[in-house]
Amino acid sequence: MGMIALAVDLGGTNIRVAAIDEGGTIRKRFTRPTVVAEGKEAVLARLFLALEEVSRSFAEEQVQGVGLGCAGVIQIERGIISQSPNFPGWENVPIKERIQACLSRSVPVLVDNDANAAAMGEVWQGSAMNSKHVVCLTLGTGIGGGLVVDGNLVHGADGMAGELGHIIVDPQGPQCNCGNHGCLEAFASGTAIKREAIKIVRDYPAGELNKRCNGNPEAITAEMVCQSAVSGDLVCRRIYETMGRYLGIGIASLINVFNPEIVVIGGRVSRAWDLFISHTKEEIAQRAFKLPAQRAKVVPAARGDDAGLLGAAFLVFRAIR
Amino acid sequence: MGMIALAVDLGGTNIRVAAIDEGGTIRKRFTRPTVVAEGKEAVLARLFLALEEVSRSFAEEQVQGVGLGCAGVIQIERGIISQSPNFPGWENVPIKERIQACLSRSVPVLVDNDANAAAMGEVWQGSAMNSKHVVCLTLGTGIGGGLVVDGNLVHGADGMAGELGHIIVDPQGPQCNCGNHGCLEAFASGTAIKREAIKIVRDYPAGELNKRCNGNPEAITAEMVCQSAVSGDLVCRRIYETMGRYLGIGIASLINVFNPEIVVIGGRVSRAWDLFISHTKEEIAQRAFKLPAQRAKVVPAARGDDAGLLGAAFLVFRAIR
Repeated sequence: MGMIALAVDLGGTNIRVAAIDEGGTIRKRFTRPTVVAEGKEAVLARLFLALEEVSRSFAEEQVQGVGLGCAGVIQIERGIISQSPNFPGWENVPIKERIQACLSRSVPVLVDNDANAAAMGEVWQGSAMNSKHVVCLTLGTGIGGGLVVDGNLVHGADGMAGELGHIIVDPQGPQCNCGNHGCLEAFASGTAIKREAIKIVRDYPAGELNKRCNGNPEAITAEMVCQSAVSGDLVCRRIYETMGRYLGIGIASLINVFNPEIVVIGGRVSRAWDLFISHTKEEIAQRAFKLPAQRAKVVPAARGDDAGLLGAAFLVFRAIR
Repeated sequence: MGMIALAVDLGGTNIRVAAIDEGGTIRKRFTRPTVVAEGKEAVLARLFLALEEVSRSFAEEQVQGVGLGCAGVIQIERGIISQSPNFPGWENVPIKERIQACLSRSVPVLVDNDANAAAMGEVWQGSAMNSKHVVCLTLGTGIGGGLVVDGNLVHGADGMAGELGHIIVDPQGPQCNCGNHGCLEAFASGTAIKREAIKIVRDYPAGELNKRCNGNPEAITAEMVCQSAVSGDLVCRRIYETMGRYLGIGIASLINVFNPEIVVIGGRVSRAWDLFISHTKEEIAQRAFKLPAQRAKVVPAARGDDAGLLGAAFLVFRAIR
């Protein structure tokens, strides 16, 4: 038998639901496309069906609660999605209440930001196991952040803490998605890498990258830049060097502020690890205080896309303890 | 009768000791010069005498413990001063043990970084009363920082967290005392203001500031720059504008990371409040996320030099509760 938490990763592309046991094993999983365009109620209906589908394999008494991670501004205590970049137009959706209403038994429902859930997943079952002071960065289209202090997530006054992609690393830097100039996200996200790559393709149409994107700069992805860099294109390598340096500048600040045991870097863009990490570590060594810089391990995330699901499950198990 | 905590501010210039009651009233205080040059044992002997002097006015049973704040790297749990900029050559001084050994009765002794103590003082009896999420900056020769999350100080893995003066606000900026380039401290501390003022005196020997320092740029203080600015010197006003802008850039990052209820700014340099705060707030409004930026009040510290003493006393009262 054993206890089970239902974990939800409510993303803009997919709704992922998993049943996870107390040992961190994913016992069952189920994924459906989100189809944002169908509207809020249709998305929620798919989510409820996915929850039902996954819980069907378990006895009712086994299910200890539901944990959900979603990008955006979350009111943790009330379980409300205030707004989410993945769901334009959603405003103050009482997701906790809605999930509770469709459960056959009253169990806790925990809601958190997706990057926070990913951080807890890495702490519970990933790279940061047994660490109590953790900085977690997820390098994707944007940059998500999760902060763990004394074993607990830092939520701040309104649940909006941990926006580590929006520390300013160069006040005169490029404009960020948030409107500000020079955020870490404007240097070290997939969007930033694509922006730099587009410039290069326009300047060097004969280069490797222009072939890879078939002459269509808008089709460039961070993965293409990574592949070109790996196959020896020096300009693409340079893009990852710059990205790595600014990442190091941001992490140096975070080390001076948090004195973490470990800095975990995940997300799609982090797969280019070998292209940027030496530059990142060099900046950290040059810029952060010596003792905390030596103390902080900088490691790749271990659980990939499952980190958010694991973290959501952990929130449930911790709440019932 | 009532309970009393003995609070110590172990500074490079003065040893300040106070007896503080549970209501936050300073019932007695005693200050002695530190005289660092006399060596560690002489400084400690003065500290013990000061503690004795202050506690003499109270019954032994009234004294609930000793709290001490000191600049530098503190091992909080063991009560050890690992190193301190005020005491060159001191290394791993077991200050908690040493104080306990000279007390006639066994009571708790709490040791923390001076900027952390000041933050707790402002939370307990100052500008941040009743706030649980607080960023505290002390602008002096350097910049000290204290972070309060969910009502508790953030210490990090080794007690070195909260070095808010050493977040990087411009990676190509001037060199900081810590060796790195472009720390907040290199833009918004007394040292930074003095550095800019010296440049100006050399460039404009006919200016207001050169008269104020009698033609000796090395004698310039942040206070002189402030006075010149207040009396209308535009170049000196500009120094505080730049300082204010970078302070705002740093605070914008901290707001995105912590989502605090309040940002408290204290220290000697903050007395020039009206010269910099509008620029600081402008940068925050332009750069930080809207909701947390609107939420975070930015206010001057209320308790001045006493904040550290109050915070040290609060650590005692909290420990015995």
